[in-house]
Amino acid sequence: MTTLPIDPERFLADLHMLRSFGASGTGKGVCRPAFSKADLDSRDWLAGRMEEAGLRSHFDPVGSLFGLVHGPSLLIGSHSDSQVEGGWLDGALGVIAGLEVARAAQEAGGPPVSCVSFQDEEGRFGVTTGSAIWGGNISLAEADALQGPDGTSLAEARKALGARAGAFLDPDRFTGFLEMHIEQGPVLDTEGGSLGVVEAIVGMRNLTMTLKGAQNHAGTTPMRLRKDAFQGLAAFTTALNDRFRNVVTPATVWTIGHVEVHPNAHAIVPGEVRFTLQWRDGSTDRLDRMEEIARDTVQEICAERGLGLEFAPKLELAPVTMDARLRGALEQGAEAAAPGAWRAMPSGALHDATNLSKLMPVAMLFVPSIGGISHDFAEDTTEADLVTGLRALAGAVSALG
Amino acid sequence: MTTLPIDPERFLADLHMLRSFGASGTGKGVCRPAFSKADLDSRDWLAGRMEEAGLRSHFDPVGSLFGLVHGPSLLIGSHSDSQVEGGWLDGALGVIAGLEVARAAQEAGGPPVSCVSFQDEEGRFGVTTGSAIWGGNISLAEADALQGPDGTSLAEARKALGARAGAFLDPDRFTGFLEMHIEQGPVLDTEGGSLGVVEAIVGMRNLTMTLKGAQNHAGTTPMRLRKDAFQGLAAFTTALNDRFRNVVTPATVWTIGHVEVHPNAHAIVPGEVRFTLQWRDGSTDRLDRMEEIARDTVQEICAERGLGLEFAPKLELAPVTMDARLRGALEQGAEAAAPGAWRAMPSGALHDATNLSKLMPVAMLFVPSIGGISHDFAEDTTEADLVTGLRALAGAVSALG
Repeated sequence: MTTLPIDPERFLADLHMLRSFGASGTGKGVCRPAFSKADLDSRDWLAGRMEEAGLRSHFDPVGSLFGLVHGPSLLIGSHSDSQVEGGWLDGALGVIAGLEVARAAQEAGGPPVSCVSFQDEEGRFGVTTGSAIWGGNISLAEADALQGPDGTSLAEARKALGARAGAFLDPDRFTGFLEMHIEQGPVLDTEGGSLGVVEAIVGMRNLTMTLKGAQNHAGTTPMRLRKDAFQGLAAFTTALNDRFRNVVTPATVWTIGHVEVHPNAHAIVPGEVRFTLQWRDGSTDRLDRMEEIARDTVQEICAERGLGLEFAPKLELAPVTMDARLRGALEQGAEAAAPGAWRAMPSGALHDATNLSKLMPVAMLFVPSIGGISHDFAEDTTEADLVTGLRALAGAVSALG
Repeated sequence: MTTLPIDPERFLADLHMLRSFGASGTGKGVCRPAFSKADLDSRDWLAGRMEEAGLRSHFDPVGSLFGLVHGPSLLIGSHSDSQVEGGWLDGALGVIAGLEVARAAQEAGGPPVSCVSFQDEEGRFGVTTGSAIWGGNISLAEADALQGPDGTSLAEARKALGARAGAFLDPDRFTGFLEMHIEQGPVLDTEGGSLGVVEAIVGMRNLTMTLKGAQNHAGTTPMRLRKDAFQGLAAFTTALNDRFRNVVTPATVWTIGHVEVHPNAHAIVPGEVRFTLQWRDGSTDRLDRMEEIARDTVQEICAERGLGLEFAPKLELAPVTMDARLRGALEQGAEAAAPGAWRAMPSGALHDATNLSKLMPVAMLFVPSIGGISHDFAEDTTEADLVTGLRALAGAVSALG
């Protein structure tokens, strides 16, 4: 296993240079949503850095920017657009790490590595828009109709690419995709470890339910004559926690994050509660079991309490298992860069790698997020951890040959 | 015990005549908020009916309308203003029943009975405004600054009374107050009975609490590292139901009617939940015990789960026990009018009688609400039950001599 001549100083300098495009002035925060001036300026700068490294820069029709070598190659990267109030590392880290590894590989005369910054992972239009279109989850024509919060459509936004926009690349030129990313969660920071090698990007199901009771005066309606929709939700929440214990792993998560009580007044027994249960896990079987338990439990509670029940159409994303060969290479790289200080873990968040898995083998590497904070100006990771991540990524590329 | 020559036909005719002021055109519903044209027109008509009955009509400065006999007398009545979308009986029933009983007493040459329609019981300004000012809960000067939903102050609204407005009456001229009202709840209608003799107007406490957890990504934050404010609320709700079982009676009620989850998004672990627990009972001791249990329980749950906790200032209304002599008279009247078909029960809602209890002995009589419905165009009671209520009220007056 050869060692690529990566340059941590150059990597950190480029990461800070990228941060200067759309720097918020609050801590290290950035405001660089897809197709903003800061985003387009940063992509032009990034294209220049690719060219300087001997890579051919190429924008696809959506504005995803590739730094290409000739012939088949590994692809490494992430996205450089940010949330409206975003952190400096979310996406940017993986893009600059990809640039540095591709650059070092160029300098070493191989192996062949290309790099990429996908467009609009943060979903100004749609969800993980640039990689979703390339991966075939949504057609360009469909995506063009999607509107951002200001009413601009993707079709209108794309016009800003002007002469930059080239053709979609043939994904078959790439042998696989590696994405390095901040964890965006608290596990590595709280429970220790410098690196996480992702086992799977978890699948997600979103089930919105409406419990329909009887809206009544909170003074004149005895408890025995009530059909209180909020009490139904509380009973469901408690019962579900008990029943899930038998099927979940420590990595499984479930959340009731959205609750609307109607009419939501102190002195009125709630007549209706609409809420969403979301659950995530790396196993489709476990997602299925949880759905069965959730549906059975809410039906039992509603039957016991005389509540009506409606399910909204379910939303779901399938889990994405990481490619064994690429994941093994990341484990080798992680063990070399941080002996005994890495762990296998799920990715609880969606990434461009989800879409890329439709096109090629994929694997992901995490570095810690301080305090688990992301999508916030306060998002950060120590320089030591950033460089350890870069070394692990370079080690994986060497291991793959 | 003499029998007053009440006239059920005349009573029902007047009740329907009052309904014609502000009739909504939807079922029997009315729109007659305090100081609306319909309200003032109906009070002028009512004053005329009082005069025709040999009663002296008198408006106080707030627009409460009395039909007075000379010398000390019993006072019977309620309010004739309605909710913006109100029922035809809420308040109106007690006003016209008071008019009919006072009229019959005039015709019979005694006993001396005056009648009343209080102003703004429904709280376009404040709460039970007319009787609250008379009862000294709020000064006229303070109440004058209160604004309705359209921004009009009570002071401005009162100008419409013009020359009608007289002085406040000396409450000492009245020996007691009887209020007949629809139940506004489902107990009589669901569990049987033509009449309810009120034991107490329940007291109420309102405690708004904020649980403060940690707002986190619902995909990347493992269950073991969460501080989920909504899960805290669900656990509190379930635990409270268990603990209350030991102290409540079948008449005690408690409600979590208002819940705000922050940020209230599918994919974010709730960082904060603000909610209100309201409970009602006729016993101050029981209200105290329940408050102690609620505070202890929420503190335990927050301590177990690492949640922060804030209490907003508590709102409370003390219970009002009915006067034993007046209540005994209503029981005699009820037994005569509906032998074996009445029950003692609490009033779960606030009424003008609450304020009058500061000034004189009070008691209340309920008739059934069909389906427990009130504050709605669909509010109704059978004619048979209306007349049974009138007979019981007249019987009580006879019993009091």
